Amino acid sequence: MTVRILVLNGPNLNLLGTRQPEIYGADTLEEIQRRLEQHFAGRDVELRFHQSNHEGEIIEQIHQARTWANGIVLNPGAYSHYSVAIRDAISSVNLPVVEVHLSNIHAREAFRHNLVITPVCVGSVVGFGWRSYLWGIEALLAHLSR
Amino acid sequence: MTVRILVLNGPNLNLLGTRQPEIYGADTLEEIQRRLEQHFAGRDVELRFHQSNHEGEIIEQIHQARTWANGIVLNPGAYSHYSVAIRDAISSVNLPVVEVHLSNIHAREAFRHNLVITPVCVGSVVGFGWRSYLWGIEALLAHLSR
Amino acid sequence: MTVRILVLNGPNLNLLGTRQPEIYGADTLEEIQRRLEQHFAGRDVELRFHQSNHEGEIIEQIHQARTWANGIVLNPGAYSHYSVAIRDAISSVNLPVVEVHLSNIHAREAFRHNLVITPVCVGSVVGFGWRSYLWGIEALLAHLSR
Amino acid sequence: MTVRILVLNGPNLNLLGTRQPEIYGADTLEEIQRRLEQHFAGRDVELRFHQSNHEGEIIEQIHQARTWANGIVLNPGAYSHYSVAIRDAISSVNLPVVEVHLSNIHAREAFRHNLVITPVCVGSVVGFGWRSYLWGIEALLAHLSR
Amino acid sequence: MTVRILVLNGPNLNLLGTRQPEIYGADTLEEIQRRLEQHFAGRDVELRFHQSNHEGEIIEQIHQARTWANGIVLNPGAYSHYSVAIRDAISSVNLPVVEVHLSNIHAREAFRHNLVITPVCVGSVVGFGWRSYLWGIEALLAHLSR
Amino acid sequence: MTVRILVLNGPNLNLLGTRQPEIYGADTLEEIQRRLEQHFAGRDVELRFHQSNHEGEIIEQIHQARTWANGIVLNPGAYSHYSVAIRDAISSVNLPVVEVHLSNIHAREAFRHNLVITPVCVGSVVGFGWRSYLWGIEALLAHLSR
Amino acid sequence: MTVRILVLNGPNLNLLGTRQPEIYGADTLEEIQRRLEQHFAGRDVELRFHQSNHEGEIIEQIHQARTWANGIVLNPGAYSHYSVAIRDAISSVNLPVVEVHLSNIHAREAFRHNLVITPVCVGSVVGFGWRSYLWGIEALLAHLSR
Amino acid sequence: MTVRILVLNGPNLNLLGTRQPEIYGADTLEEIQRRLEQHFAGRDVELRFHQSNHEGEIIEQIHQARTWANGIVLNPGAYSHYSVAIRDAISSVNLPVVEVHLSNIHAREAFRHNLVITPVCVGSVVGFGWRSYLWGIEALLAHLSR
Amino acid sequence: MTVRILVLNGPNLNLLGTRQPEIYGADTLEEIQRRLEQHFAGRDVELRFHQSNHEGEIIEQIHQARTWANGIVLNPGAYSHYSVAIRDAISSVNLPVVEVHLSNIHAREAFRHNLVITPVCVGSVVGFGWRSYLWGIEALLAHLSR
Amino acid sequence: MTVRILVLNGPNLNLLGTRQPEIYGADTLEEIQRRLEQHFAGRDVELRFHQSNHEGEIIEQIHQARTWANGIVLNPGAYSHYSVAIRDAISSVNLPVVEVHLSNIHAREAFRHNLVITPVCVGSVVGFGWRSYLWGIEALLAHLSR
Amino acid sequence: MTVRILVLNGPNLNLLGTRQPEIYGADTLEEIQRRLEQHFAGRDVELRFHQSNHEGEIIEQIHQARTWANGIVLNPGAYSHYSVAIRDAISSVNLPVVEVHLSNIHAREAFRHNLVITPVCVGSVVGFGWRSYLWGIEALLAHLSR
Amino acid sequence: MTVRILVLNGPNLNLLGTRQPEIYGADTLEEIQRRLEQHFAGRDVELRFHQSNHEGEIIEQIHQARTWANGIVLNPGAYSHYSVAIRDAISSVNLPVVEVHLSNIHAREAFRHNLVITPVCVGSVVGFGWRSYLWGIEALLAHLSR
Repeated sequence: MTVRILVLNGPNLNLLGTRQPEIYGADTLEEIQRRLEQHFAGRDVELRFHQSNHEGEIIEQIHQARTWANGIVLNPGAYSHYSVAIRDAISSVNLPVVEVHLSNIHAREAFRHNLVITPVCVGSVVGFGWRSYLWGIEALLAHLSR
Repeated sequence: MTVRILVLNGPNLNLLGTRQPEIYGADTLEEIQRRLEQHFAGRDVELRFHQSNHEGEIIEQIHQARTWANGIVLNPGAYSHYSVAIRDAISSVNLPVVEVHLSNIHAREAFRHNLVITPVCVGSVVGFGWRSYLWGIEALLAHLSR
Repeated sequence: MTVRILVLNGPNLNLLGTRQPEIYGADTLEEIQRRLEQHFAGRDVELRFHQSNHEGEIIEQIHQARTWANGIVLNPGAYSHYSVAIRDAISSVNLPVVEVHLSNIHAREAFRHNLVITPVCVGSVVGFGWRSYLWGIEALLAHLSR
Repeated sequence: MTVRILVLNGPNLNLLGTRQPEIYGADTLEEIQRRLEQHFAGRDVELRFHQSNHEGEIIEQIHQARTWANGIVLNPGAYSHYSVAIRDAISSVNLPVVEVHLSNIHAREAFRHNLVITPVCVGSVVGFGWRSYLWGIEALLAHLSR
Repeated sequence: MTVRILVLNGPNLNLLGTRQPEIYGADTLEEIQRRLEQHFAGRDVELRFHQSNHEGEIIEQIHQARTWANGIVLNPGAYSHYSVAIRDAISSVNLPVVEVHLSNIHAREAFRHNLVITPVCVGSVVGFGWRSYLWGIEALLAHLSR
Repeated sequence: MTVRILVLNGPNLNLLGTRQPEIYGADTLEEIQRRLEQHFAGRDVELRFHQSNHEGEIIEQIHQARTWANGIVLNPGAYSHYSVAIRDAISSVNLPVVEVHLSNIHAREAFRHNLVITPVCVGSVVGFGWRSYLWGIEALLAHLSR
Repeated sequence: MTVRILVLNGPNLNLLGTRQPEIYGADTLEEIQRRLEQHFAGRDVELRFHQSNHEGEIIEQIHQARTWANGIVLNPGAYSHYSVAIRDAISSVNLPVVEVHLSNIHAREAFRHNLVITPVCVGSVVGFGWRSYLWGIEALLAHLSR
Repeated sequence: MTVRILVLNGPNLNLLGTRQPEIYGADTLEEIQRRLEQHFAGRDVELRFHQSNHEGEIIEQIHQARTWANGIVLNPGAYSHYSVAIRDAISSVNLPVVEVHLSNIHAREAFRHNLVITPVCVGSVVGFGWRSYLWGIEALLAHLSR
Repeated sequence: MTVRILVLNGPNLNLLGTRQPEIYGADTLEEIQRRLEQHFAGRDVELRFHQSNHEGEIIEQIHQARTWANGIVLNPGAYSHYSVAIRDAISSVNLPVVEVHLSNIHAREAFRHNLVITPVCVGSVVGFGWRSYLWGIEALLAHLSR
Repeated sequence: MTVRILVLNGPNLNLLGTRQPEIYGADTLEEIQRRLEQHFAGRDVELRFHQSNHEGEIIEQIHQARTWANGIVLNPGAYSHYSVAIRDAISSVNLPVVEVHLSNIHAREAFRHNLVITPVCVGSVVGFGWRSYLWGIEALLAHLSR
Repeated sequence: MTVRILVLNGPNLNLLGTRQPEIYGADTLEEIQRRLEQHFAGRDVELRFHQSNHEGEIIEQIHQARTWANGIVLNPGAYSHYSVAIRDAISSVNLPVVEVHLSNIHAREAFRHNLVITPVCVGSVVGFGWRSYLWGIEALLAHLSR
Repeated sequence: MTVRILVLNGPNLNLLGTRQPEIYGADTLEEIQRRLEQHFAGRDVELRFHQSNHEGEIIEQIHQARTWANGIVLNPGAYSHYSVAIRDAISSVNLPVVEVHLSNIHAREAFRHNLVITPVCVGSVVGFGWRSYLWGIEALLAHLSR
């Protein structure tokens, strides 16, 4: 059976590639998407990508995922540090979520060490550029196959 | 004269009934709405319900209420804990607001004890499930009839 | 069957009416009591009122309520902010408690935002003058009839 | 016209003289009372002394003082550092209060630097042994004669 | 010569046995008292038991113990966490005090980790049910026989 | 060459003129816009105005400004105090930003002293009503002409 | 033998009378000086007054007082809240110091509750206008006559 | 009528031009003064410049400005972060003050985010090099012409 | 059946008797061991003593105790205040642990009030010199015999 | 060329499988090792496993890895939260380190949210049981092949 | 070539010898100066000594040292704990500074552990009486000869 | 008589020379040892060097020093910031200890400003590379010769 995964990206990630490449790398979000699709091509996995700068839209994407997805890989961007509403959205649906970050947020400003969403996720993959998504999806697949 | 009240609900409350029923109860938002309408049926009160997951939309609902409503009953959901913008929206309009919560937020995680909107409200009703709305509306009506 | 409720008031509430009327209103505790009795006159509810400035006496009233009451509506006054002993008294008995406050304590001094008793209550009604008691009792009745 | 002053002492002050004389001095509360009476003998001042270890009784003494006193000189003892209830009692009555302490509490443990009652008093006299009462009464008399 | 010990219990401990037995055990205070009396029956020890929910009364029991007791075993209950007044009462008398707790307060809510009375005691026995009293008394006897 | 500037306003600023005029003044946002246009009429400056109550839309306005603007004058309103996402949007684009505020936020509630966006701006102009925009634009023009 | 006292005033006290009279009263420093001289006229007390806005000069006045004064009455003004250097100056000389304040600093902004000099003083008199000096001098005289 | 403005500079600003030019720019204080004088040459404005490294002298310059100036533009330098005495000097005189900073202090060390003087100023201009003074003066002129 | 108990001592306890005897007493660890062995001589208890200054070795002693001991009496010394690793070791094995301290750590420096291991122990005996071990063992025996 | 990786495990991880299986899973460290060896069998990767409960030994393993390894996958266990010495060991060698955790430490006690080692690592994989190692090694391999 | 060093002393150090000799020793500042001159007599070093109680004068001494000195040995006294202005003075000049203290400030009151100047110094020598200056000068000479 | 000194180095200092030379310099620990031996060659001083990455071994080196050394020069490395156990080891032996650091820890990360060992040392020499040891030894010799 096909496993369906929502790969959900938060604010400013649409600018990837042009945005502070010394921190986030030179890949655009489309390139990351293409690589992930290639990587999971031969496997029974469907990836749907979504990016939004709107907290409310991220919440609603999580809500709608209930109707079609088996799990979510989420890069909440800056919302990681204060969006209790996204945290509650995850608690509200019955789907496993894996949090990913491109950069090592623990090595950056102190306010990025406060993580309000991670406690309601299965786990996190942090600091490996586009591959954070790669292993985040793998981790989610393994979690789902338990 | 008819008293017009905006009953405004914040993020994730559209999932009521399915969302963590051990905390929020088994009622859907529609059922709560129906009960409240029944309860106030014989009285000269008009209730308009709105739910949004978007902080900006909640702000704009509060703005627009100036043109038609006498007061607001607000369940800000997770925004209760960080939305200074919703707080400022309430300060910006000349309408009394009563804050309500389904669950006893004081008995939950520490970050839910930080309440940034309550100081600009008339008062709050917390922890009584759908009846928090019921008495919140009553409290608002009494406040308006002063 | 008659529902018996202890309406328990903490320190300084005996001065209601003369005490900072701009904050607490012009009603005396006796007037509030009379209005509540009138309001619940036709219903099968017995209200017993008690006020004490003594932390120990409030604790003992809660203890004794085990023998006769179905629940408690408590205005802990200033003890709300530090009396772990009253909190423990509530945890020690098997009775639902609803906390009420006349004024919106969240809009007052910062030290009044620390609530040590609320986490062991069913919920709270805050900021509506004497009507905080009214809806606090209603909320308790609804809770008991579940 | 005679000025009537309540000199109100909080917990453990009944042990003065035997209690840590290196901090509080060798005088008993009775001796302090006698000296104060002698000092104000020829003036139109009536001093009534009361000591209680009960937070509730201190509150009630403050309440009752409304009916007979022009002002209060209060040594709240250890309640200085956490009794919001005594603070509220002072706010509840319409009497000027001067706070006094025998020892220099600012030079003792850090928890004695937190003063919750002082903000609602006229002022304070701290650190001069029994004479803290002496000048506290003088300060109150001057305040009343304005 | 007979050693006289005051076993002093603070707020809510009169409800032992019925109060949260999963935390405090099924023994009543009377049963604990009986066991302790049996245990020390053959030894030259006199135990006097007292329980009060009143902070002021606990203070006065400590004051009066100066006239008859050699030491105190104290379970301050919830007052452990904020009663500077009881702490000062102990500093005011010249008697060794051992603090005891039925439950392991260090394993409970964070606010129970703040101990304001312990610094002026000889030591503490915490977490062993009624036997906390048993070894608390033994510890006090050993301390007195030095 | 014409200098193009985005004048971007955050939540509740659409209510200017009616909103708390004692804090924010009696000017509407349209009047401010008109005055600024008049002021810069004879100079080679194009001002585009935008207001949004939505955090996500503010982020996207900043993103789009990359394609047409030389710089941004930003009044983030209440988002100043918690929107790490807007901060990251500014870091993501290569445009100088000047932060402006109508009122002196440093003289208001303590939570308004926390500024998460200012560190990634060129500078700020705070407290001068509509003229904060005026000098904010001037400062941006001077910065761009370096 | 004449008792010599330095009455030392810190920053901004030279503006007394014109400075925020609703807080500090309408008396100038000269008027306060004259009243104090009148009050102590018949007694063997010499008062020398000094005011400085300079932290260094206040320190040096304290140093020089060693050579002629028996004690100091000090109103450190705003330096009360951060001048460790003045605190150390007091610890460096062998003179008793009484701290005085015109207004009740405990009832003002939170940063005025931090008192770094008081711990090395004999005591303090706070909140009684010019009479704070009066009783501060009396307290110092009593302290010196021990 | 000529508007008279004191442009007052705090500690280390006499070293401008040589001091950390990567933060503060290459202009000396004299050059800034000359540019400002040129800028306001044709207008009815008199600028008097003063720089001091002494907290006490800054306080006294503010005091003396009462006798001749219509307002003050103040760069308090490092004193911005701890001088309650300068804050009180501003509160003591009846003159509007605008605070300016050459560099964006919000983008520097955390201790520079604490601003004790700004709350008693009209507003602030921060981060635009010598032009912070330019617009600070303009803002003050606009404030005075209201 | 014989009960086997590991009495495990942490860093610096090998110096007992010579180390700060005013705090820790004049007994060496060997003397304490001998007294405890004498005390439990006639009872079916085997005590094995171990002391280590190495955090890792303490962890491994706890691990190994799984294979032979019924419980542990642990004096973690300074590791009490920061060794999460020892805490986790206790959580990792299925053995009851009683924490003991020779001195009353609550009456010493503030950093000794932070207890990271106590929450995973059965209880603690603190402040009674070598007898803390005595009653710690008794408490463990009672716990095991439940 | 063969890539050599040190898989280094900190305190208590030798008890895996028996230790709190509800948190850490039922796998032993040997089983995890075997699975990882199988997984990387066909690839040019050499894994060397080491576990130690000793902070000093972990430091020395990191030091020695300089002489033979290309990178390190580290599960610091409880040392994650306080071992600045292990952090410095990583900074001292020129090897990339990936931090892994079996459980989602962000969802556990607050003291486990403090991460002192992560800032000097490449990134982290947290919460996926033995697979945290799997993707940690993959991430390290990808990092090394850049 | 002669190395020129400013030995700069802050507030209250002019009282050395008479000031709290149990903390600061019995040497006067003149005696320390004489010993240092003797010690460096045969070497090509010129020491110029200056002491001031004025923060502003210390700043100006640092400024003037630019014109003649190769480095500074600074004992900032109490200003160590709050003078950001002295810190900025050091950052403003291009001279190496070594901080020295007579007493071990780390073993004294908690507020003396906050060091605002040390981060911009080369290093510090703390706790060795007059010899702190001796090795501070040696350290500066070694630093300069690099 | 020969003075015997233990020069004790903590974790990661064995990597000196290769470890972050921009912070710690290019000298190896052996080179530093050789230079110190040369420096003290002609004087009656015996230096014994020891380095350990193990907290427990550092503790035991301090214990053993009692039997042969006159004092200790200690560079605790990262243990400076959390090892209460090493602090207690120093308090347990009767030997003067001087703390040294190669780099200026006050100019580095905030967590390196917390010093738990320094309060029980004689003093400290910080920031002068290998010469911190040189003057640390000199300071210890001077301390011993008092």
